[in-house]
Amino acid sequence: MHVLIIGAAGMVGQKLTNRLAHLAGLSGREITQLTLADVVAPAAPEGFGGAVTLRAADITAPETALSLVAERPDVIFHLAAIVSGEAEEKFDKGYAINLAAFQTLLEAIRAQSTLNAPYVPRLVFTSSIAVFGAPFPDIIDDEFHSTPLTSYGTQKAICELLVNDYSRKGFVDGVGIRLPTVCIRPGKPNLAASGFFSNIMREPLIGLEAVLPVSKDVVHWHASPRSAVGFLIHAAQMDTRLLGARRSMSMPGLAASVGDQIAALDRVAGASAVKLIKSVPDEKIIQIVLGWPRTFAPQRAISLGFQSEKTFDEIIQVHIDDELGGSLP
Amino acid sequence: MHVLIIGAAGMVGQKLTNRLAHLAGLSGREITQLTLADVVAPAAPEGFGGAVTLRAADITAPETALSLVAERPDVIFHLAAIVSGEAEEKFDKGYAINLAAFQTLLEAIRAQSTLNAPYVPRLVFTSSIAVFGAPFPDIIDDEFHSTPLTSYGTQKAICELLVNDYSRKGFVDGVGIRLPTVCIRPGKPNLAASGFFSNIMREPLIGLEAVLPVSKDVVHWHASPRSAVGFLIHAAQMDTRLLGARRSMSMPGLAASVGDQIAALDRVAGASAVKLIKSVPDEKIIQIVLGWPRTFAPQRAISLGFQSEKTFDEIIQVHIDDELGGSLP
Repeated sequence: MHVLIIGAAGMVGQKLTNRLAHLAGLSGREITQLTLADVVAPAAPEGFGGAVTLRAADITAPETALSLVAERPDVIFHLAAIVSGEAEEKFDKGYAINLAAFQTLLEAIRAQSTLNAPYVPRLVFTSSIAVFGAPFPDIIDDEFHSTPLTSYGTQKAICELLVNDYSRKGFVDGVGIRLPTVCIRPGKPNLAASGFFSNIMREPLIGLEAVLPVSKDVVHWHASPRSAVGFLIHAAQMDTRLLGARRSMSMPGLAASVGDQIAALDRVAGASAVKLIKSVPDEKIIQIVLGWPRTFAPQRAISLGFQSEKTFDEIIQVHIDDELGGSLP
Repeated sequence: MHVLIIGAAGMVGQKLTNRLAHLAGLSGREITQLTLADVVAPAAPEGFGGAVTLRAADITAPETALSLVAERPDVIFHLAAIVSGEAEEKFDKGYAINLAAFQTLLEAIRAQSTLNAPYVPRLVFTSSIAVFGAPFPDIIDDEFHSTPLTSYGTQKAICELLVNDYSRKGFVDGVGIRLPTVCIRPGKPNLAASGFFSNIMREPLIGLEAVLPVSKDVVHWHASPRSAVGFLIHAAQMDTRLLGARRSMSMPGLAASVGDQIAALDRVAGASAVKLIKSVPDEKIIQIVLGWPRTFAPQRAISLGFQSEKTFDEIIQVHIDDELGGSLP
């Protein structure tokens, strides 16, 4: 089996690559070839026995999609995107990368069937809870409408519609998964408005200060990086006949307040870690966060076998296991 | 005031043109210029005192949008589309006309602001209840998700998302209106799957037979051509600040079963008209209609002042008044 990851150099893309490299296979078939593409060449995974192709490519160029699809990969993960803040600031770039590049990929896949034998790969598309916009009900169910309040969310919502239509027409076998905010993100603090949800956990766990720009009663929807990779792999193997015409779903996650996060940090790492969180209200971030969804009832995804953490303690433990070698410093 | 209608040669486009030609103005401003564009040159309205420009143009060509927008019309009605059946059969043509041409228009409007002074026209986009797909709740409210089951519905749903995002960014002042099935359509019977809703009324009213391909308990959502034009004109004048970030809405209409339609025909035109309806079940149409929405609770549109017929007798009377000179032959 040949697996293509577009956007393999990002945080989730790297973790997915490493997980795939050590899997027995997908849907019972051994992975013999991995093609990893991104705007910068992704790193090859360690310990993978099959063939690896690394591609640094402009995914907005039609020839990129055509050449990536020419080898007819069996499973395609599409993770490539610029983040919400950048898409909001750079309108054209956001539409080019987050929407047009995906349309180009879909068309390249369709062209393969026309040019040669039928070709209907499994396509796993990473959408986002940013397809939803306030005002919200208390709990967002599987039939609540998509009314994004950002260009990023708009682009993701449009891609979901395209996944449905191209799948319905039999051009591709698509699954769209709306990721919760991925927490705890490894690496350095970043400037994403949602960065603080991770910063206030990751930094104190290694003895560093972190800034909390909102109040402790802010509730948000979280899943660990490990769960995010699990969603992708499940989406690549699931029986898509069970999806009917609705190919995209909100993923399971954990609704936690910032206060819940801090209480979990206290239980796992103690009061000295909690003391490293400095409250510095940031009106701009407070306003942005007000427009974000909080709590979901993702019954479809749960009934289809997608799984995530049940407590924030678990989310912290995943970070300790996967990023800190299994124990606190 | 300069008004541009893209798709002016179609049935609704022609009726809108004629209504605008006789309006005192829009939002209190006299209409001094009408630009009418379509793939074939639209007819000029009778009795209009202002300037009229007729344009036969390929709306999928970027230069068309740029030249239509170069004169900076104050209000733009975008009605151009190929219908559901054709978009389903001709995948590329559907996406080119129903989606890409609209994106090109939005970009041409945005470019006007960049090239010269700020330019934020009112843009009225005709969407459709085809953005919804089964399974449905009994009544579709204003927060039910868009899960189209056709390429046409997908293209309309994507355009709605673009209207929201371009309006939110201040590039355009957009309103999207989801038209009910327009009934009674004037003209000859056509091959659209929804054509029978009109055929079984229009043909018997002038003494001709009509075929009913479904059972009488099929319920559907209707508004007259006159109401459709009324929605468009209201959308062109309304205070869009009341819309917030959600620029598209389901329009009011009338949920009527085929039996309700026939009972209204009986009341208006008598048993001799009803006898002209021949039941010839068509399994293909029966299956298509099963996927269509039936009943809406369009509270937002109603509270914002959009109005439609309350009984099917009224819908028939509109047809008699507007198409048959006010009385039955």
